[in-house]
Amino acid sequence: HALFWHLDSGVVTVALQGHAFILAIQSQNTDLIQFFVDYDRSVGNYVADVDGNVMLDLFTQIASIPIGYNHPKVVKVLTDPANFSSFVNRPALGMFPPADFAKNLTDTLLSVAPPGLHQVQTMACGTCSVEHAMKAAFMAYRRRERGGKPPSKEEIESCVYNTPPGNPKLSVLSFKNAFHGRTMGALTLSHTKWQHKLDFPCPDWPIASFPYMQYPLEEFLTENKAEEARCLAEVEEKIASAKKSGQPVACIASEPVQCEGGDNFASPQFFQGLQDICQKNHIALLIDEVQTGCGTTGKFWMHEYFHLRDPPDLVTFAKKMLTGGFYFADNMRPTEGGRIFNTWVGDPSKIVMLKAVLDVIKEDNLVEKTANMGKQLVQILMDAQRKYPGLLSRARGLGALVAVDLSDASKRDKLVGKLREHGIHVGACGTHSVRLRPTLTIEKKHLDVFSDRLDVC
Amino acid sequence: HALFWHLDSGVVTVALQGHAFILAIQSQNTDLIQFFVDYDRSVGNYVADVDGNVMLDLFTQIASIPIGYNHPKVVKVLTDPANFSSFVNRPALGMFPPADFAKNLTDTLLSVAPPGLHQVQTMACGTCSVEHAMKAAFMAYRRRERGGKPPSKEEIESCVYNTPPGNPKLSVLSFKNAFHGRTMGALTLSHTKWQHKLDFPCPDWPIASFPYMQYPLEEFLTENKAEEARCLAEVEEKIASAKKSGQPVACIASEPVQCEGGDNFASPQFFQGLQDICQKNHIALLIDEVQTGCGTTGKFWMHEYFHLRDPPDLVTFAKKMLTGGFYFADNMRPTEGGRIFNTWVGDPSKIVMLKAVLDVIKEDNLVEKTANMGKQLVQILMDAQRKYPGLLSRARGLGALVAVDLSDASKRDKLVGKLREHGIHVGACGTHSVRLRPTLTIEKKHLDVFSDRLDVC
Ligand code: FES
Repeated sequence: HALFWHLDSGVVTVALQGHAFILAIQSQNTDLIQFFVDYDRSVGNYVADVDGNVMLDLFTQIASIPIGYNHPKVVKVLTDPANFSSFVNRPALGMFPPADFAKNLTDTLLSVAPPGLHQVQTMACGTCSVEHAMKAAFMAYRRRERGGKPPSKEEIESCVYNTPPGNPKLSVLSFKNAFHGRTMGALTLSHTKWQHKLDFPCPDWPIASFPYMQYPLEEFLTENKAEEARCLAEVEEKIASAKKSGQPVACIASEPVQCEGGDNFASPQFFQGLQDICQKNHIALLIDEVQTGCGTTGKFWMHEYFHLRDPPDLVTFAKKMLTGGFYFADNMRPTEGGRIFNTWVGDPSKIVMLKAVLDVIKEDNLVEKTANMGKQLVQILMDAQRKYPGLLSRARGLGALVAVDLSDASKRDKLVGKLREHGIHVGACGTHSVRLRPTLTIEKKHLDVFSDRLDVC
Repeated sequence: HALFWHLDSGVVTVALQGHAFILAIQSQNTDLIQFFVDYDRSVGNYVADVDGNVMLDLFTQIASIPIGYNHPKVVKVLTDPANFSSFVNRPALGMFPPADFAKNLTDTLLSVAPPGLHQVQTMACGTCSVEHAMKAAFMAYRRRERGGKPPSKEEIESCVYNTPPGNPKLSVLSFKNAFHGRTMGALTLSHTKWQHKLDFPCPDWPIASFPYMQYPLEEFLTENKAEEARCLAEVEEKIASAKKSGQPVACIASEPVQCEGGDNFASPQFFQGLQDICQKNHIALLIDEVQTGCGTTGKFWMHEYFHLRDPPDLVTFAKKMLTGGFYFADNMRPTEGGRIFNTWVGDPSKIVMLKAVLDVIKEDNLVEKTANMGKQLVQILMDAQRKYPGLLSRARGLGALVAVDLSDASKRDKLVGKLREHGIHVGACGTHSVRLRPTLTIEKKHLDVFSDRLDVC
């Protein structure tokens, strides 16, 4: 029986009420629920539902489980009394950090910092990571414009009430089919589904096309190169017109591969070109690695494949990293206190668990292994699309980030359903792609199971 | 020694590097750090710093610790193997909820739902709670305008790229000195400090004055009533001018007492007037109880003091509730799937701990006790301000939400510092207020210590 608190006329009374349970089931926006999971019985790469079905999980909580369910090394963290207080006392981290927090950051987030980046800000999820990374870019942009002068009295007074000059008309350029989150700033950068956007006011910041590659890549070298050149030209054009219309671009945000938007890859040359444009225009480059980071693609950060001249200015993360946050270049560091802050700014208990996850990744050499598994997984899809040319196309991917297209959404959804009936849980993305997002602990035997069932479906 | 991953030329190598530790300390925006805490040694209402000082904590991690540090009942949750998987496997809650999630919501969030509200959406922090609650209001507003018709093809296609009609010019009215969070939508409603706002673009949504009460209340009945009438008139005026300027108000957001802005109270009549205005104009009323909820004020939700004709449409929470989220009225429920959603939409491990917290609150009758403790705490401040009339004024508060003013910021900061030297940790708010935010487990003996030390300082 559930307890119901009846609070009235200053007296707190407690009553039993039978119908609360029914209310609970109706209480959330539940229309996307696919199935209820038995997390106790889920283990490694297998997810168990409440009806006793056990499935090979190639979607892994929207790509957020790094090393499988109930990994013994992570469970051990929880049972170590030295860690209890991290879980039980969530601090206001920005004001009252735990004694060992600096060391814990060093052992975790900073130990896997993208090459060339040495600073990190913790956050609680992917969305606030993107929101606050954008703030770092806005501050850097205005700092440069002020030329070392402190903000004026007029700026300081006007900003509080959302008015210029303190509240400037700046923008962030994003890409068609991008997804960066659901709070207003991050949502303004997201362009995948109307369900995410309809009825919600967002500023009209510039949006450029993201390259749409033709596969197999080696057969479409010229076409793909032209496509990327077209998109980069559009970026430059949008920057110029945003400036003209009075809301200059302070930041360009992009995923290293567009995940929700359909696993859309672009070449290293495209991202190099993007960085050139950013540097020419004093624009910060934000690479959003929420879905691609933590070894997912066979490098710890996907943008390492791009061999950029300089590191990105901002790299956001969450999902498999268990905590949100972002790495930032030295010039992105706020110069005043309290600029990037909130009550919790993250959660030390997630850092404690992340330590165990990173230890496993290192000891078991999982980033390299994931790179190899990914090659085999793409090969399985390549073979399948050769076998069923009318059905499957555009097999693509790196590491634990692999996709294949069907000819339309209904065929895609049918395949996802059939695979589930045959014990394989996969995801969907874009309008007609299947996405595979195994953990970093996937092995050859799992791929064999997948290959086998795919053939049946 | 810290581990550093050197990722280059396609090969992952691991190297030891000694200087990572130094980088860690520099890595966050740390300027607001007050002291490092030894969370293992903090217990109940006492916080221990790393130098061995133990202080009576009347600020409690920015009012976010409900029943004290290391409460044995919460520690017990952590050591129960039945709960391990909630901590170790964070689900994508909106798609793959745990089997017992509906029951857990019933036993926790729904068991303490504000009177008249029966639906709840979990979120991860106060900010995303406010952001998504606003979305519920925007959807409800447009649903009414559509008069039951589904969204048009034009709306569906335009919204994805931030253009009308799918991306409408709607606004949320907020109050001067309000604080609701730091992501773009929530930040647009926040007007306390320039550090939160400078350089960050926000839409120019309407902002009205919040009543500024003169104390003691019984001596300023007429003045305070006139002040509240002035503010309500301003609200109506801002709604009319927002409509005229083409960005109608879909929602009014207010804290039941403005906390960050200086512990500014208004009367029940003010909030009743606000609800009248909302209902007349088809505007949703969002009461942001992030800092005031969970029994803080001597009722479980502070807005219960207001005796509103109908429940508020939206009630947001976080902090002491351990999880974020919002309660909503039936007409605020989205009618399409996936409208309010993100990867995690909360964290079941927080719900598991919240269960223990709510059990303690109920068993120990803490809401009622907090109401009584608050009366005594205000009395202590009243006595002090009678004793030191030039120093202290405007003693005010309810339950564990109590404040007193000094004549200016420097005197306030001096008192906060002196109290800390004498073993009492308090917070600041507004421009020149001291805020007291004890846990719900504060007792007479703690008040005696505070009273004693205040007299010395
Ligand atoms: S916005 Fe990231 S946790 Fe709330």
